[in-house]
Amino acid sequence: MSSADDLRWLDAAAALAARGRPLSRPNPAVGAVVVKDGVVVGRGWTQAGGRPHAEAGALAQANDAARGGTLYVTLEPCAHASQRGPSCTSLVLASGLARVVIGVEDPDPRTAGSGIAALRAAGIAVELSGSPAARASLAGYLTRTTLGRPHVTLKLATSLDGKIAIPDGSSQWITGPEARAHCHVERARTDAILVGGGTLRADSPRLDVRLPGLEPRSPQRMVLTSGPAPEGWTGVADITAHGAFGDAQCLFVEGGAQAAATFLAADMVDRLLIYRAPIIVGDGLPCIGDIGLGSLAGAHERWRHVDRRTLGSDALDVYERLR
Amino acid sequence: MSSADDLRWLDAAAALAARGRPLSRPNPAVGAVVVKDGVVVGRGWTQAGGRPHAEAGALAQANDAARGGTLYVTLEPCAHASQRGPSCTSLVLASGLARVVIGVEDPDPRTAGSGIAALRAAGIAVELSGSPAARASLAGYLTRTTLGRPHVTLKLATSLDGKIAIPDGSSQWITGPEARAHCHVERARTDAILVGGGTLRADSPRLDVRLPGLEPRSPQRMVLTSGPAPEGWTGVADITAHGAFGDAQCLFVEGGAQAAATFLAADMVDRLLIYRAPIIVGDGLPCIGDIGLGSLAGAHERWRHVDRRTLGSDALDVYERLR
Repeated sequence: MSSADDLRWLDAAAALAARGRPLSRPNPAVGAVVVKDGVVVGRGWTQAGGRPHAEAGALAQANDAARGGTLYVTLEPCAHASQRGPSCTSLVLASGLARVVIGVEDPDPRTAGSGIAALRAAGIAVELSGSPAARASLAGYLTRTTLGRPHVTLKLATSLDGKIAIPDGSSQWITGPEARAHCHVERARTDAILVGGGTLRADSPRLDVRLPGLEPRSPQRMVLTSGPAPEGWTGVADITAHGAFGDAQCLFVEGGAQAAATFLAADMVDRLLIYRAPIIVGDGLPCIGDIGLGSLAGAHERWRHVDRRTLGSDALDVYERLR
Repeated sequence: MSSADDLRWLDAAAALAARGRPLSRPNPAVGAVVVKDGVVVGRGWTQAGGRPHAEAGALAQANDAARGGTLYVTLEPCAHASQRGPSCTSLVLASGLARVVIGVEDPDPRTAGSGIAALRAAGIAVELSGSPAARASLAGYLTRTTLGRPHVTLKLATSLDGKIAIPDGSSQWITGPEARAHCHVERARTDAILVGGGTLRADSPRLDVRLPGLEPRSPQRMVLTSGPAPEGWTGVADITAHGAFGDAQCLFVEGGAQAAATFLAADMVDRLLIYRAPIIVGDGLPCIGDIGLGSLAGAHERWRHVDRRTLGSDALDVYERLR
């Protein structure tokens, strides 16, 4: 069992991990801090392309100060040798650290507890904390490794009454500039972004990141279609097919209503972002199509509200799928 | 200009005023506190049936302690003689109060500034504060007196995607017990409650207050219909007709989608309560029908978010119409 202090250091490590997302792909975006006598002496996060790992960066920065200290790392240190560098477990053993607190055990079968075992065998105190922040920051990697598919966020931008357009299809703009900017930040943190074929044909969305300095983070663009995809787009015909989304750890689904319904009906939405503008549309296009719900009882106990933000005159509510 | 202290005392007076609602009808539910040397020496609110007035109650409780003190009252004291008792202006003059701070000027043509004028003529310091709390607590009275219709609250209880039922019409239950209890408190504070004819036929709602001790507060029941209304219900054929809602100051509209749309299309909704359950319905019945919206631009700048509450696993968002 980890202390409240331990969990706070892991929160800090998880915040650092966010810097590596999504450029660390195919590696998980991990964060690490080395703490000695209550002071941070090293910080690291997975670099673009996956190397150096977070632990390597934090230990290099700490150098001799690591001796006798504690490493807080969001994911179990890797234990397998690689042509690209030594394993993090071997780096920890060489560092003189006294203690390692880990956010989440690595489900990768090449590690899967062997990193923890190797450290303990060398006399290092190792704790597995169950840090919610570490788990959340690794959601994409954990979902891909355990379920073989990306962690899916569904974004809806609606009126108060759940509409995304008036009857003639007009939908620009429901939400304001603050909500759109927030959505671009979400895009910058995902590996791939997807819209339905109808939305692509109707709106020709660019789906890129239009925030100064974050343009290079524009994700891979995907379209839900059984036909050919336009240049610059990857076509996805069956969202449940193995490898449908390549090696993407995080997928951001931006609609329309049929694409949203397809993911919901397959129970493949892990996180829901609802941006709501303070407008009422009445008759218009609903945000979600038919999901095959047979009874209201079946709709309950599936979603948990986890965040609320005011964005200009709009509001964002975030929900997570209870599994 | 009133001070922050003055506005806080008026907040307290407005909180007392809520006790009179809706039983004070046809009189406004007013609240009053008498403060002497920073201490409350009298409190009052409009009693059932409209008498005694709030000022009368507060001054009777303060008695001699009122001398040299300040009266905080949400609405301008009445100045017209009545067979039911002396005017509040005359009571204030007899009390020896040094100062009166008023929330809102009374738009009733029988008062409309004459109360303020009479007090000032007698040498009492009078301030009109523009207290938002006082104005909000008198919304029903002010709307009825100035617009000739009740203040209308539209309640929606929906899924996250704005649906009120699955395609077969099943709608029990969208929201949970905490949200339903909150809705019953809202019912207990209104004069009349209305549903559409279709909802009455389909659901036979009781629309009463089922909270211990508040059963006598069950409001008058109205149905939007051009035909005859069932026993115990008042039929309303045209919501814009003069006197359509009798002397109701506050009307609570509980649906369905067509009734909601009728009030919204007539721009007769002043306050919007949206109870949202953390469920997704997909294909289903939308919460609001056609309101004749011609363009999205016309939907903006109409609603302001004023409150948010968590009610069990549901959430309530409250909006006010910007006018």
